[in-house]
Parts: sequence; C-alpha cells; structure tokens
Amino acid sequence: MSESTTNVQTIEIRELVEWLSTFGTTNERGVTRLLYSTEWIKAQQALKQKMHEAGMATYFDGVGNLYGRIEGSIQGDTVILTGSHIDTVKQGGKYDGAYGILASFLAVRRLVEKYGPPIKTIEVVSLCEEEGSRFPLTFWGSKNITGEFSITSIDNISDNEGIPFKKAMNDAGYPIDAYSPKKRNDIEHFVEIHIEQGSILEKNLKDIGLVTHIVGQKRYTITLTGESNHAGTTPMDERKDAMVCAAKAISQLTSIAISLAPGLRITAGQLIAKPNVPNVVAGEVSFTLDIRYHDKKVLDSYCEKVIEVLECISNESDIQLSVEKWTDIDPVTLDQSLHELMKKKIESKGFSHMQMVSGAGHDAQVFGRHYPTTLIFIPSCNGISHSPLEFTEDEYLEKGVKVMMDTLYHLAYKGGIA
Amino acid sequence: MSESTTNVQTIEIRELVEWLSTFGTTNERGVTRLLYSTEWIKAQQALKQKMHEAGMATYFDGVGNLYGRIEGSIQGDTVILTGSHIDTVKQGGKYDGAYGILASFLAVRRLVEKYGPPIKTIEVVSLCEEEGSRFPLTFWGSKNITGEFSITSIDNISDNEGIPFKKAMNDAGYPIDAYSPKKRNDIEHFVEIHIEQGSILEKNLKDIGLVTHIVGQKRYTITLTGESNHAGTTPMDERKDAMVCAAKAISQLTSIAISLAPGLRITAGQLIAKPNVPNVVAGEVSFTLDIRYHDKKVLDSYCEKVIEVLECISNESDIQLSVEKWTDIDPVTLDQSLHELMKKKIESKGFSHMQMVSGAGHDAQVFGRHYPTTLIFIPSCNGISHSPLEFTEDEYLEKGVKVMMDTLYHLAYKGGIA
Repeated sequence: MSESTTNVQTIEIRELVEWLSTFGTTNERGVTRLLYSTEWIKAQQALKQKMHEAGMATYFDGVGNLYGRIEGSIQGDTVILTGSHIDTVKQGGKYDGAYGILASFLAVRRLVEKYGPPIKTIEVVSLCEEEGSRFPLTFWGSKNITGEFSITSIDNISDNEGIPFKKAMNDAGYPIDAYSPKKRNDIEHFVEIHIEQGSILEKNLKDIGLVTHIVGQKRYTITLTGESNHAGTTPMDERKDAMVCAAKAISQLTSIAISLAPGLRITAGQLIAKPNVPNVVAGEVSFTLDIRYHDKKVLDSYCEKVIEVLECISNESDIQLSVEKWTDIDPVTLDQSLHELMKKKIESKGFSHMQMVSGAGHDAQVFGRHYPTTLIFIPSCNGISHSPLEFTEDEYLEKGVKVMMDTLYHLAYKGGIA
Repeated sequence: MSESTTNVQTIEIRELVEWLSTFGTTNERGVTRLLYSTEWIKAQQALKQKMHEAGMATYFDGVGNLYGRIEGSIQGDTVILTGSHIDTVKQGGKYDGAYGILASFLAVRRLVEKYGPPIKTIEVVSLCEEEGSRFPLTFWGSKNITGEFSITSIDNISDNEGIPFKKAMNDAGYPIDAYSPKKRNDIEHFVEIHIEQGSILEKNLKDIGLVTHIVGQKRYTITLTGESNHAGTTPMDERKDAMVCAAKAISQLTSIAISLAPGLRITAGQLIAKPNVPNVVAGEVSFTLDIRYHDKKVLDSYCEKVIEVLECISNESDIQLSVEKWTDIDPVTLDQSLHELMKKKIESKGFSHMQMVSGAGHDAQVFGRHYPTTLIFIPSCNGISHSPLEFTEDEYLEKGVKVMMDTLYHLAYKGGIA
C-alpha cells in the first residue's frame, strides 16, 4: 500500500470519528449522547443514512439498535455481527463506543468495495445503549439481542429527571406496546473493536490488544456503624470509630488483593462518613468496593476473604457491619480461535500486538455468554476515557480498522473470495 | 441538712437550668443561642435581672460579657471571677455553659445569704461567647477579658449569612467604635464548673471531677493527591490511589497514638474523596486529624511522627502530600493548690471525686494562661453534649453547686467569716 493511500484512509476514519462526535458535542468539547435523547436519535438517523449510502440494508430493532446489513452470497442465514455502542457517559469522549461502530462500518464498506458481497451475511450494529448513563441499567442494547431483558426489567426505572424508561423509549419512536424481546439465534460470531480505556498497550508500545477475557465484577457497599462521639472527651479504648475501622479494612483488603493474584483489582472509590466533622468521632462510614478479575474461582475466593476480614475488623471494634452486594457479573472468556491467525496477519503488516484481559465491561461480554465473540483493543492516549480528553492517534485508529478488515474477512469471506 | 431542704435546693438549680433554656428553645427541644442573636440578648438581659434581684451590681463590658458583682468587705480591689458561657452550638443542649453560669450564680447567692458579703470581691460572669458557632472565632468572651483579642481579630469575619461580626456586635448594643480591649489585671482567680461532655465520671461512678489540665489541641487537614483512574483498567501497581494512602495513614497513625501514650486522642473525623465514585480510583482525598493531649512534649513529638508517617506513606505511593495545620493550642495546667482541700470537703459531704484531664476546650483554658484557675466537672448522662439529648441528673447539678460554694468560700471568704 502506497504512502498516499495510507494517508487518505487515515483521514477517512478520523473524519468519521469527528463527524459522529458532532451529535451531542458539549461546550467543554466533550460528547453527551444519552439513550433516547435528541442527540442520540439524530446520531442513529445519521448513521443509518451513512450505512444506506454504503449499500447496506438498514433497520432498527424494537429497542433502537441500528443495523446495516450486507447479505451473504452463500450462507445468508447466519450473521457475522460487528459493532459497538452509540451512547456515551455524560461529558464523555469521542471514541468510547463510537470508534467501534465506525471501525466496523468502515472495515465492512472497504471489504465490500474490494471483494464484493461476503459468503456469510455481515451486519454492522450501532448498539443503542451500553453505559447506563441515563437510566440505572447497563447493556440495554446487547442484552435485548441476547434475550436477557424483558418488559419487567424496565418497570419502575426512571432517569434523574423522573422520566420513566418506558416513556423515553416510546417517545424516541420505539413503541413500548410492540416490545417483545427475543434472543437472536442467527448470530454466528460477534466482533467488537474498542479503545482500551487503560494504558497497558501504550506502556507496552503495542498497536493492538487481543482480548482473551473480560473480567468479572463484584461491587459492594460496606456500611460500618459505630458511635458518634466528642473527639476530645472520648478515650481511645471506648470509641466505636467507624472511620478507623474503614481505614483498617481498606488498607488490609488492598494488601490482600495485591498478594493474592497479579491482575486482581480492587477499588474503594467512594467513602461517605457521618457526621463528617473534624472534632467528632465518625459514627458511620460507608464505602464501596469494586472487585474485578478474569478467573471466577479467584474472584469468588477473594470475595469470601473480604467478608471474613470485614467481620473480623468490625467485631474487634464492636462496630456493626452491613454488606450490600449490588453488582455480580461473572468473568467472560472470549473466543480465541482466531488469535493465532490474527497475530500472523497483524505481524505481516508490521503492527505489534499483545494478548490482554479487559478490566472494563463491554458489549462483547454480553455477546460472549451466547455466541463466539472477538474483542480487539487499540491504545488510549494516557489511558484516559469517559472524559473529553479521550484521544487515540490516527495511526492506531487506522490500524484498528485494518485488523477489523482481516478479522471480518476471515469470518465472512474465508473460503470464498480469498 | 434535712431531706426536705435538699429537695428544695435541688429544685432550685433544675428550675434555673430549665428557665435559661427557654431563651433559644428550638422545635427539636434543643437550644440555639448564638452570639449577638435576639435569643442571646434576651438571655443576657434576663440573667442581668436575676443578678440584680440577688443583690448583685450588674454591668456589661464592651463585648457583652455580663457581670454580677458582690463587693468584697476588706480586699475589694481583687476579684474572684466565676462563671461560664451563655452561647450554645446550633441545636445544642441546656447544660453546656449555661449550667456553669447558673451554678456560679446560685453558689454566690447562697453564700451571701448565709455569710453576708465576702472579704474579696466576687463577680459572676456570663461570658458572651465560647463555642464559635456563629462566627469562625472561639472564646470571644474570655479572650477579651485576658486581652488576647484586638479589633483586627474580627476584621473580615462574617457569619454564614454574610453578616459581619462588627455589624452584629454593634447591632446587639456593643458599639464597635467604643471597643478597646484590655487585659483585666484585677482577677485573682477564675473558677468554672461545667458538664464533663464525656462519660469518664459516669463510668467511674464519681460525682465531681477536679480538672488538672486542659489538653492541647492540634488540628490538621491532610490532602493526598494521586490520580483518578478507571477501576477496571488500571493495574494495582500503576495506581496513585489517594483512598488507599489515606486509609493506611489513618490506620497507622491511630495505632501509633494508642501505643505512644494512654490518654493521647486522635480523630480523623472528616474525609472527603474526589471524585468519590465507586468505579473510579480516588484522585484526591482530604482528611482531618484532631490531636489532643495534656503534655506538650508528648503532643509535639506525636505531631512530628504524624508528618514522618505521612511523608513515608505518600512517598511509597508516589502521592503528593499537603499538610495544613489550622489549630495549634498548647495544653494548660490548672491551679491544683485547692484540690487537696476540696477533696476533703467533698468527701466530708459524702460525694465522690476524681482528678481528670479535660479533653474538650473551655473558657478555663483561656483564663488558665493568665490567672490561677480552677475547673470542676459534673457528669454528663451517656457523655452526650452539643445535642438536645444533653442531660445531667438533679443530684449532680446540686452537688456541683455545693462544691462551687465550698471553693468560692475558700477563695473569697476564708480567714473572714469561716
């Protein structure tokens, strides 16, 4: 491929990313595109037009996932599905989700331009929701395709302004009366590309991450109830100091996690103390624990240890313990049958690669429970995501598209035109 | 003393406590009497009337401290000053400060009724402010008597509603133009009685606490600045987790304090994390440390250790450390020359007693830096204070008055009528 061609293609994916980011641009140069909002509707409609122009047959499903379909020439009944999510967090960036849709779209458009129709049907999907930024519900798009949601899943769910999920969906043009989710049984493989949202690729100077697992996640809120008391008049041995108890717990649980398994990640990101006054012993402290690992056995065994340590520390200080688990997602093993082939193709292009675990959740983890699924990462500058500062250089954007072309070619064309 | 007399006297101090609490009673059965507020003005005027009725000469000084004076028959120039503070915290109780004024008042009234005028002049004082609940400034009353404040001390100080200190003072009837603070040099001894605000007397089943020291206090705000990062994608060894750093510090500093000296009290009462979100590594955590002890050397040496530990922990985690010291009050040793005498008198009445250290601040600590000062405690039910739930039983209220009578008798009458 000549220098000039590379430049033209680089501009193509960059232009698409900038174009899509105009739907929901905020004053602070971020992007806010919440499920069923005006910006979201406009972005889906604009993408539909782009797909149409690229010769794809377009349609929406009952919840607003948008598809651009290229019919397979031989095995048309099974579908190679590829894409990512169109929604963003509030004040997010231009890449998270959006890049994945555009890279899939561009890869398919180029393949069709170069090789004509595939053997197997390809659908590019713009998934309606992954983040859960408007409503307290994640993976609305992918979990409807896999049949994991039903009408009761959105009963009594409203956004921060009190708008019910069902009303927002109805108003966006997806009639709630017609909602009848059903698992799609025609999907042979799901392929997603995403920015890493971390800095492992950047630090290892790699172009492409081949994701082997998506971590399981457990999230807890731990509430320690002691006794509020005067900081000056309460002897140390008569205190029921919830802050000291929380501090011991966070400190010990972190040390245990580090020594238990490399890659096990735990985060106490939120802590709320009451009354939270300098000269009063804290009577109550609540903190969260976010725990992630790709091996269910290790994850479960660490979580058992968490309860053990919390019970021990709270008993010592005569403090009441309450543990609420509000997230419990098992790790997902992705399809690695293509990795050896992909590595060779990637190397033949002069790109570098590494296998890695995804610490963040992705639509691929939902699909991965139902269909063979491939997930590919490109680097994120400084590992930043969910921020207007999200950035990936043109070079990597284009390398990602090329690897997507190879992957989709293998899945949908192989044995055909190759 | 007959049973019936005891009952009458018991009712007297209880009635006074209930009466004074009507100035500033809140809906929640608490008392809010902030410096220079309408409730505060009414309470001082009502107390003035009570003093007048008891035969005292009354006057206010330039900042609103109220005095009831009984002229000494022989050594009239020096003054035995006794009292406490009239202001409360927001939604405080009936006893903190108020009981001290009323016990001093009642003790002096009874002494005069029984023995006539003292040899030395006695003044009962209702100090205008101790808590610092309206303006960010404590001990306004006592520090004006001891000459520690000047007009510049209240420059640019306003309450939460933006009312300047000087305006509030002026409007309450204490003209700012006439303000000319000067240390009183006629005070021979200051005597204060106060509720304990802790539960040491209650737990030790003692009626009276003879306070030997008031602790020194140092307060710090410690800010740890790390890096906000994704909880899933940031490896543990690449984190700059301000929460874990704070947890280690609070945990270690508490252990060190406990092992360094019995009675050393440290409290991390307030903690604020940013962004304080479950799935984001905390980029910044600020927490306060309140440190109290009665021995300056030990207090200072612990504070040096605090800095050492904080530097060590923050360096280990590559986290930026900022330490702001915003309170630095030396411990005060009170006059103990009366204690042996008082113990005998207390025992002869069948009351129990113990020497103790005050972990809370009191006006006595301001006076104690300038004049011989005596501070006496009575029990607080469950150690509760700064709350509508503040309570002390009639029995102890009355015992306190009796011990005040003995103490003031010794200081102002001894060698006279005895």
